[in-house]
Amino acid sequence: MPASFETAQTASPVSFSYRPTSTGRARLGTLLTPHGSVETPQFMPVGTQATVKSLTPGDLRAAGAQLILGNTYHLSLRPGAERIARLGGLHRFMAWDGPILTDSGGFQVFSLAHLRRVDDDGVTFASHLDGSPQRLTPERSMQIQELLGSDIAMAFDQLVDPALPAPEVAAAMERTHRWAERCLIAHDRPDQGLFGIIQGGVDEALRRRASAEIAALPFDGLAVGGLSVGESKAEMAATLDVVADTLGDDPRVRYLMGVGSPLDFFTAVERGIDLFDCVLPTRVARNGQAWTREGRLNLRNARFLDDPTPLDAECACETCRDYSRAYLAHLFRAQELLAYRLASVHNLTYTLDLMRRIRAALTDGSFAALRDLVAGQYQRTNRDR
Amino acid sequence: MPASFETAQTASPVSFSYRPTSTGRARLGTLLTPHGSVETPQFMPVGTQATVKSLTPGDLRAAGAQLILGNTYHLSLRPGAERIARLGGLHRFMAWDGPILTDSGGFQVFSLAHLRRVDDDGVTFASHLDGSPQRLTPERSMQIQELLGSDIAMAFDQLVDPALPAPEVAAAMERTHRWAERCLIAHDRPDQGLFGIIQGGVDEALRRRASAEIAALPFDGLAVGGLSVGESKAEMAATLDVVADTLGDDPRVRYLMGVGSPLDFFTAVERGIDLFDCVLPTRVARNGQAWTREGRLNLRNARFLDDPTPLDAECACETCRDYSRAYLAHLFRAQELLAYRLASVHNLTYTLDLMRRIRAALTDGSFAALRDLVAGQYQRTNRDR
Repeated sequence: MPASFETAQTASPVSFSYRPTSTGRARLGTLLTPHGSVETPQFMPVGTQATVKSLTPGDLRAAGAQLILGNTYHLSLRPGAERIARLGGLHRFMAWDGPILTDSGGFQVFSLAHLRRVDDDGVTFASHLDGSPQRLTPERSMQIQELLGSDIAMAFDQLVDPALPAPEVAAAMERTHRWAERCLIAHDRPDQGLFGIIQGGVDEALRRRASAEIAALPFDGLAVGGLSVGESKAEMAATLDVVADTLGDDPRVRYLMGVGSPLDFFTAVERGIDLFDCVLPTRVARNGQAWTREGRLNLRNARFLDDPTPLDAECACETCRDYSRAYLAHLFRAQELLAYRLASVHNLTYTLDLMRRIRAALTDGSFAALRDLVAGQYQRTNRDR
Repeated sequence: MPASFETAQTASPVSFSYRPTSTGRARLGTLLTPHGSVETPQFMPVGTQATVKSLTPGDLRAAGAQLILGNTYHLSLRPGAERIARLGGLHRFMAWDGPILTDSGGFQVFSLAHLRRVDDDGVTFASHLDGSPQRLTPERSMQIQELLGSDIAMAFDQLVDPALPAPEVAAAMERTHRWAERCLIAHDRPDQGLFGIIQGGVDEALRRRASAEIAALPFDGLAVGGLSVGESKAEMAATLDVVADTLGDDPRVRYLMGVGSPLDFFTAVERGIDLFDCVLPTRVARNGQAWTREGRLNLRNARFLDDPTPLDAECACETCRDYSRAYLAHLFRAQELLAYRLASVHNLTYTLDLMRRIRAALTDGSFAALRDLVAGQYQRTNRDR
């Protein structure tokens, strides 16, 4: 096993370098992958089914995306990992030539699939699409991700509700660690990095142990899983503190899975997180919610029907350049497909631009001022709602 | 009345010049409007609710669109013509700076609205959106189209099922003619052209009379309405022959409303038609049907799931440049929004490129060869289905 770990580490195509900042544990970094480099802190738009909903790769580039996420669970069920491999891999299939990270399938197996049965070897479940029986193991997750050809694969983990009794959370964590070692052994694609996942719920001792044990393995990066699943903001912050304490000055890139919203980014960056992914910016966009320098705007609100101004006067996206709030409010009422696209373009641009502003603020020492500014913008519209 | 006709004609911002071709009655022409010129024969994508479904003006330009259509009925109900005028007019509202033609509302009042009651002054109906009582008259149709600020307005007409008894078709035609005169008097926007509509169903005598009477009025262009509503291909061709016979060498632009499909274009161009509009290319696209040089492809067919080739190897659109049939087949099965967009981009590009090929064929005398080529392509896939 140590031999294969060393091989994986030596051959890794994914490297990360960072410099500390004057802001708490925040880091500024650069992640190198076979399909290009990524400035961190960075946000990954989510392309669940080989598409970020309603958008093309050209839109993603224009929004500032440097790295996107694909879903192993979804893609393996439809259209199938072997099929995507025959068609030249995920990059070619979806025409995105930048870096891709694939998740392991673990999260969706535990959130979407039916008739789930976990054993120590893996998980048996029924597809949410057609009920067909399916089996996912650490080895199969590695195989699927290698077939997809992402730049970064994630280890297969077991997610549990952090509100469960500690012994159950501990058992899932321990299984996740056994699976992590199997993923490292099984992983066999030299042009693909592999990240481990720190579980352990919101229990301090378990998170500490998970952080130490996953960090002891030769992964190319370290992810924090099992958050953004219903815990409080205070629990998330405390858990990230525990992870940061335990990892210390570990030089590997750190990825907080499934987060988040504008204010969550600040909470996590201050605690050393470099990467994020979340469906939120595009999902709320399709529901008519725009993220702006005035906070959240609900485009279904009648007051926007006569508003000739752009969503965000300081935003450089196509939506803000060409269209008024009145037009977007009309498109949402008329249930026009263009509504979902234009709002998604804006929210992703806003989110990726917020990451750019965070990086700039970490550079020039104005992070706290930016955090307070954005917090004020969002607290005001939260009150208004 | 003659005075106002002359004023309208003199001040008209829309002019058309054409040269005859060696192909039957086919014409090659240029239509000048306040927002730019249009080469004919030409097809107008339909932007029903101030958007061509799923597409931006940038997509339309890339597809080759020179002129688009907006719907008076839909826009007057939602978001409202007065609102669009306050927001700077339809061009600015939807961010399309090229020419726009608006229909009169007549077609939708007779196809979509409920509880319809026609009197000689106009039509009372219930909105298909909320049942609210509405009233449309020739004067109100002109007012709405002037508020929208389209380059070309259409006269308000009464559509009837051509299968109705001749006296009913004749009565609707006569009312359409009385309304046409009222439209010319009411129309008062000097930067907007106005086209008359020839009705008369598929009755030869009525069509002849309608063609003569509408052509006798000082409209800037002449449209053929009441076709593509269920009549046979032979009836459509015969009716277009009658119209062409009656109009003779009338120099005004001729627009066949609501047509059509690739083969219909040839039938109509041979009979002197210069302009077309239809929802078909984008509607069938959203249902997974692509128009190509191999004829119609149904992307829901399983055989495309492993097909690495583009929809149409000779097509220059973004969809054919970047994506495989396999990817599109996947997007349709996954019900991804991007499916509707990419298929719409392709079908509009195909349709507008077919118009370009028709113009080129009229120039170099190869129209019949092109017609036979395209007919062969579509007949083959019609058999396959």
